[in-house]
Amino acid sequence: MTQPDCTTPSPVLVWVPGVAGTVADGSEPFRIADADDPQLLVTDLVATRGDGVFETIGVFDGAPVNVGPHLRRLGRSAQLVELPSPDLDVLSRAIDAAIEAHAPVPELTVRVMMTRGVEGTGTPTAWIHARTADDWSRYRAGIRVVTLDRGLSTTVAETSPWLLAGAKTLSYAVNMAATREAVRRGADDVLFTSTDGYCLEGPTSTLLVKRGDTWTTTPASAGVLPGTSIASVFAMLEREGQSVREELMTPADVASADAAWLLSSSRLAAPIAQLDDTPLTVDTERTAQILAVLKGQDPQSA
Amino acid sequence: MTQPDCTTPSPVLVWVPGVAGTVADGSEPFRIADADDPQLLVTDLVATRGDGVFETIGVFDGAPVNVGPHLRRLGRSAQLVELPSPDLDVLSRAIDAAIEAHAPVPELTVRVMMTRGVEGTGTPTAWIHARTADDWSRYRAGIRVVTLDRGLSTTVAETSPWLLAGAKTLSYAVNMAATREAVRRGADDVLFTSTDGYCLEGPTSTLLVKRGDTWTTTPASAGVLPGTSIASVFAMLEREGQSVREELMTPADVASADAAWLLSSSRLAAPIAQLDDTPLTVDTERTAQILAVLKGQDPQSA
Repeated sequence: MTQPDCTTPSPVLVWVPGVAGTVADGSEPFRIADADDPQLLVTDLVATRGDGVFETIGVFDGAPVNVGPHLRRLGRSAQLVELPSPDLDVLSRAIDAAIEAHAPVPELTVRVMMTRGVEGTGTPTAWIHARTADDWSRYRAGIRVVTLDRGLSTTVAETSPWLLAGAKTLSYAVNMAATREAVRRGADDVLFTSTDGYCLEGPTSTLLVKRGDTWTTTPASAGVLPGTSIASVFAMLEREGQSVREELMTPADVASADAAWLLSSSRLAAPIAQLDDTPLTVDTERTAQILAVLKGQDPQSA
Repeated sequence: MTQPDCTTPSPVLVWVPGVAGTVADGSEPFRIADADDPQLLVTDLVATRGDGVFETIGVFDGAPVNVGPHLRRLGRSAQLVELPSPDLDVLSRAIDAAIEAHAPVPELTVRVMMTRGVEGTGTPTAWIHARTADDWSRYRAGIRVVTLDRGLSTTVAETSPWLLAGAKTLSYAVNMAATREAVRRGADDVLFTSTDGYCLEGPTSTLLVKRGDTWTTTPASAGVLPGTSIASVFAMLEREGQSVREELMTPADVASADAAWLLSSSRLAAPIAQLDDTPLTVDTERTAQILAVLKGQDPQSA
């Protein structure tokens, strides 16, 4: 993690008691809070069980990207873990308030968090946290990725919904441990694989693979997060007349592709330069174009 | 969850800045804090990633049970997720301070929590939280248990350590979702099974099975938590001349046993009265004896 230097503007915290319509009449559904003050009780279920859902939204020159898709996915994650439905309008306005209150910077990372709340209350806790984005520009030149088994088959989302495959929950300890394992192996990031031999997603990213004029990602039905970034990129490619699809791919399929990327809202477009021991071509032009899309810019200007 | 009534004594919070030797010279490694005040920053990695480890210790008439084994297991979990080693002596004294500060009650539940700390600091956050135990006495008469697939094989602890099988982490969203699924099916609790067809453990408990004079639990190598309760019970049984062992069991093995239990430090001994559709005999005498052991009492007095 990049340590903020002393010239980095202060993060902004917006507390959202009205995330699920739970404020008293006349109270504000959200308010700016002091990010340096402790805000969470130790009995919040996020602190005792990692029990909550979240989204991370990129903001470029003050403009947040894909707010609607991110909030709809938050609602879907909440449904999968049986949290109350979040009020997406309140959250959207709270995000705007956080961005407005933050000092202007080229890139902000905005987290949208919703937990099951303090034990016994049944009332979710929610907040928005906006901070200067970490610098992931080193990811643009190409990253080394290792495949790591996630231990699950591509059928679990259908057969075993309690495993929460495809929900973006705050129980990310395994994702963090897998990332540490990648670093230990001298790599930058991870591509999870299923027990039935297919590529899934990264711990915090979505897989995109190019072969000729066909662009492929992992089907959400395989138990991966339905990516907000991939939807934007696919829309751009379709406008260009390219073919896009969801299909299961093996590591050999990815390693033999024309190019491949890991996409995320904060790290944006990371071209895979090496998958396990196989080097891949980095498509600099396409990377710039995808980067522009993920920043909410016109890809033609890239 | 049992809602505390107005006569329930207040919980006690002990903050432990010295959990990993991180306090300045002359500062106290722990201090009593106000459990009603927010203590956690929203940027603590437990709040953003469910990234931490924990233990739950039962305290009966003021005496905590199995503190040493619990703290050693906390240290093992910390090692598995690459947290700094906790100072077990500091934690032990902090637990005593929490118990002493709490109003005397017959049963206390003490949580020992250690997170990766606030992002970018590299310093763990830790606290002890002591509160009046929930009433699980309804579990004594026998519980209905459903088997649910955990989606993983019994070999993952060995093959894929980044999946953190066997670490007691704060990423418990799946455990909570499985418990909700059990309730939805009209049951009380869950027995997780592996993809290769064996019984593992409950979301917050360890399996114990009796067949004649032989008592069996799941091997820790299958990716389950090494139970502190089972160790106490096995020690009691061995003193009695019974045979104890770790061995993989199928659901059919459990359903055809003389008796079976789910053990935990807070719910104690819960006899399985029904596993999926199969009724099991509840061994009332043995349940009382196991209960006594788990309360740190002489089992002969049960």
